[in-house]
Amino acid sequence: MNEPAGRNIRLLIAYDGTDFSGWQRQDGGRRTVQGVLEAALEKMHGARPSLTGSGRTDAGVHAAGQVANFYTSLKNIPAERFVPALNGLLPRDLRILEARETRPDFHARFDAKARTYRYYLVCGRAALPQELRYALHIRRRPRIERLNEYGRLLLGERDCSLFASPRDSSISRSRHISRCLFFVRQDTLIFEITANAFLWKMVRSVLGTLLSFEERDLPPGTLSDALNRGSRRLAGPTLPGQGLFLWKIEYYRD
Amino acid sequence: MNEPAGRNIRLLIAYDGTDFSGWQRQDGGRRTVQGVLEAALEKMHGARPSLTGSGRTDAGVHAAGQVANFYTSLKNIPAERFVPALNGLLPRDLRILEARETRPDFHARFDAKARTYRYYLVCGRAALPQELRYALHIRRRPRIERLNEYGRLLLGERDCSLFASPRDSSISRSRHISRCLFFVRQDTLIFEITANAFLWKMVRSVLGTLLSFEERDLPPGTLSDALNRGSRRLAGPTLPGQGLFLWKIEYYRD
Repeated sequence: MNEPAGRNIRLLIAYDGTDFSGWQRQDGGRRTVQGVLEAALEKMHGARPSLTGSGRTDAGVHAAGQVANFYTSLKNIPAERFVPALNGLLPRDLRILEARETRPDFHARFDAKARTYRYYLVCGRAALPQELRYALHIRRRPRIERLNEYGRLLLGERDCSLFASPRDSSISRSRHISRCLFFVRQDTLIFEITANAFLWKMVRSVLGTLLSFEERDLPPGTLSDALNRGSRRLAGPTLPGQGLFLWKIEYYRD
Repeated sequence: MNEPAGRNIRLLIAYDGTDFSGWQRQDGGRRTVQGVLEAALEKMHGARPSLTGSGRTDAGVHAAGQVANFYTSLKNIPAERFVPALNGLLPRDLRILEARETRPDFHARFDAKARTYRYYLVCGRAALPQELRYALHIRRRPRIERLNEYGRLLLGERDCSLFASPRDSSISRSRHISRCLFFVRQDTLIFEITANAFLWKMVRSVLGTLLSFEERDLPPGTLSDALNRGSRRLAGPTLPGQGLFLWKIEYYRD
């Protein structure tokens, strides 16, 4: 296999997903994070380097810690200078937080060990416009202890069919969930979940399901049953993307 | 003078100014806060009540505490129900925080005693996309003590010609500034200024001027001289709207 030419640059990326049609480059002029970033890289390089992300995020989903890598043919720019250089070319809803040279075989997607997402919920009180851009507003105040009881049932290696989209085409629906936690910070309810990987739209389905079980005051055993049966119709609604952040990617060799 | 029909309803309003062409209703289909709010009121009332704001905000300027009033012909709705009713009709970048019945002669603009604005600055470190929507990013870290020294010179009744836009047409440029303060909260530099009223774009000119004096390390006496001379060319740049919030309106009889 030919080694790609040039240094391998690893980027830490944040974006406001509201005005993007998700991460993945698309034909037909849709505004995507990958597309906008590759266009900025093309301005710097003359040619367009291909950018590898840790994974796709959907339309409307934000990122505080997306990771991507690309090979640069530029010889004279120190890796950290990609931060101001790219930010100068990028719109303000897409920011490079860090850039560094990494090992030649680093692959942002295949080398990822764990992915963490966060979902922000403003509960009960009136929400400000700047909160509604980055959080979902719900009228009631769910009981956090009960949500965390449910969350503990998800830990470990699990068949995640309950949370699979009808359009899911994964070969295996087994995923290892290592963290599933609710906590409150400054008036906002935060849901944090970490797994080796997620099915499509799974995080939003997990949260919608746990909230729905909590609202109906179902005992934790009912959730265990639903997980075992894995039938989509036992799950709650899939929540919208506005409250969801790709929070952190961890790698095997960092 | 005829008393307008119906109860006088006072609203507390927050908006993300990014996608609005300012507060004031405009002909020609521009999206303004007043226009969108009046359209929602029209849906509730059949006819369009006229909404009186405490003052205009410019394109791109946000509000955390705008106040407005209107007369409702609806007899059976308790005032506080206007909050969920309007929010259900409004886009998420415009939110009603409170609604209550007020005295018949309350006027959101003429009865305002003091207006407070805040400007948010992210200094030095890389800024996140969700910060850049509501704050200005500057590369350097200004000295806060020096900025507060300057700020104290502005307190009291002042001729504000130094900060007047070339297009300013005020009869008097004298304003009473009762607060002018810089402070840091969670990594962000906040400028807060209160006055009985402001000239057009004055807050952004004050802040641009104080930052410019600080950057050039000019002694406070130089600012006093500039204030006395009142010549626009001694002022600093007028900063963009993205970091500016109409924060609070205080009234004579509340």
